[in-house]
Amino acid sequence: MSATPRLHVAPDLGVGADIPIDGDQAHYLTRVLRLGVGAPVRVFNGRDGEFEASVSAVTKSTARLLLGDRMREQATVPDLWLLFAPLKKARTDFLVEKAVELGAAELLPVITERTDAETVRVDRLSRIAIEAAEQTERLDVPLVREAVKLEPLLAKWGASRLLIYADEAGDEGGRPWGGDAGRARPMADVLAAMGDSPAAVLIGPEGGFSPAERKKLRDLPFVRPVGLGPRILRAETAALASLALWQSIRGDWRR
Amino acid sequence: MSATPRLHVAPDLGVGADIPIDGDQAHYLTRVLRLGVGAPVRVFNGRDGEFEASVSAVTKSTARLLLGDRMREQATVPDLWLLFAPLKKARTDFLVEKAVELGAAELLPVITERTDAETVRVDRLSRIAIEAAEQTERLDVPLVREAVKLEPLLAKWGASRLLIYADEAGDEGGRPWGGDAGRARPMADVLAAMGDSPAAVLIGPEGGFSPAERKKLRDLPFVRPVGLGPRILRAETAALASLALWQSIRGDWRR
Repeated sequence: MSATPRLHVAPDLGVGADIPIDGDQAHYLTRVLRLGVGAPVRVFNGRDGEFEASVSAVTKSTARLLLGDRMREQATVPDLWLLFAPLKKARTDFLVEKAVELGAAELLPVITERTDAETVRVDRLSRIAIEAAEQTERLDVPLVREAVKLEPLLAKWGASRLLIYADEAGDEGGRPWGGDAGRARPMADVLAAMGDSPAAVLIGPEGGFSPAERKKLRDLPFVRPVGLGPRILRAETAALASLALWQSIRGDWRR
Repeated sequence: MSATPRLHVAPDLGVGADIPIDGDQAHYLTRVLRLGVGAPVRVFNGRDGEFEASVSAVTKSTARLLLGDRMREQATVPDLWLLFAPLKKARTDFLVEKAVELGAAELLPVITERTDAETVRVDRLSRIAIEAAEQTERLDVPLVREAVKLEPLLAKWGASRLLIYADEAGDEGGRPWGGDAGRARPMADVLAAMGDSPAAVLIGPEGGFSPAERKKLRDLPFVRPVGLGPRILRAETAALASLALWQSIRGDWRR
């Protein structure tokens, strides 16, 4: 891990630009890290790549950064979305952090029949996504969308994007070891047989999808049900495992 | 998910046995879930499979369970260990929970040069492992071993068990996008080329392995360095991704 602090900033970036930093970021640089004028920093904004920079001024509550060379050209992650039913706060926070590390391009909270109706704070999740992007050396920050209900989302789905959904046979109180009838194929097999199309992973709430939702999903031509082994996974575990498998088989973890 | 509570218990299990429950488990059944006599429960002990049971007695601080039929024969997970450098408490807790869900057979805390020397509470991690096993429908609970130092662990390693280690090129301040020289092959490729031998996944601390540790690891005949994509992953993310990939390609997520 590089020891040079890395910040996501809003302004346009270019060699020689001198940009203002305030709020939490200024506090972090000048109070937590205690950086003074001349200290090295790295910055990115999701559009212009990543630049070397150095602290050019410090006041009580602000700082300025003078940009040096562009060290990396802008790049994006593969076109993979994560659709997830909101969980309890700590687990949702965790899920968002991990999804950013695992290269999800967009995060969509989805309200299903059995989703516990906690409010989704998009601004809060966006802040977590930015911090995770800083940490994981991404050049972009995934968009966190407003929560939507599953049914209208499916109704206007663009059929060119495959929707991979983790279909635990345990949804209806059945036990996943109780037989293979109707069980989804292993995710690795499904991914290996899938072309290089845009994709989205859909993870249901802790209580699973309802029988009506499962039927609806399985009947849609762009949906690919997948299995994630014989154990019951918590929702966030299923999400992380799915993202890692997708990156390995279809995404940018391939050489 | 099944709504019937599932408990890991210590006694031997058999049809008609009547077993005592006390402490936290009794509190959970009688106070949290407010179960009365006759309420259904499921029990397993890691040796005798899983049994249907029902509450047969309740006192202020204890309960008893009468065992019915054995519903599942004892089974084990594939022979995969997780070796991990202890992290901050919340992240270690999370890592243990997820490793149980993802079917690790044993968990070994490993002290490396750059491991922050927080005490590893094996009893605490074992409790987390038991709760996760109850939740994830496992029939066994992974053993959590006492922490050991990396070097003596490698010195007495049984060469028939392959040691898969996540080798982030970023260890020495290098950037993973800076070129492929010396970079590990993608994990999915390494796993696909690996036979069905016992295995262990080794994940270093947040600061990575030291250059000396990396060289030592790469020189050992039973070690397989693997890459996990172009982003910097936190240690627990690398661990979870590795376990999911192993289960998919070599473990019990295959059909």
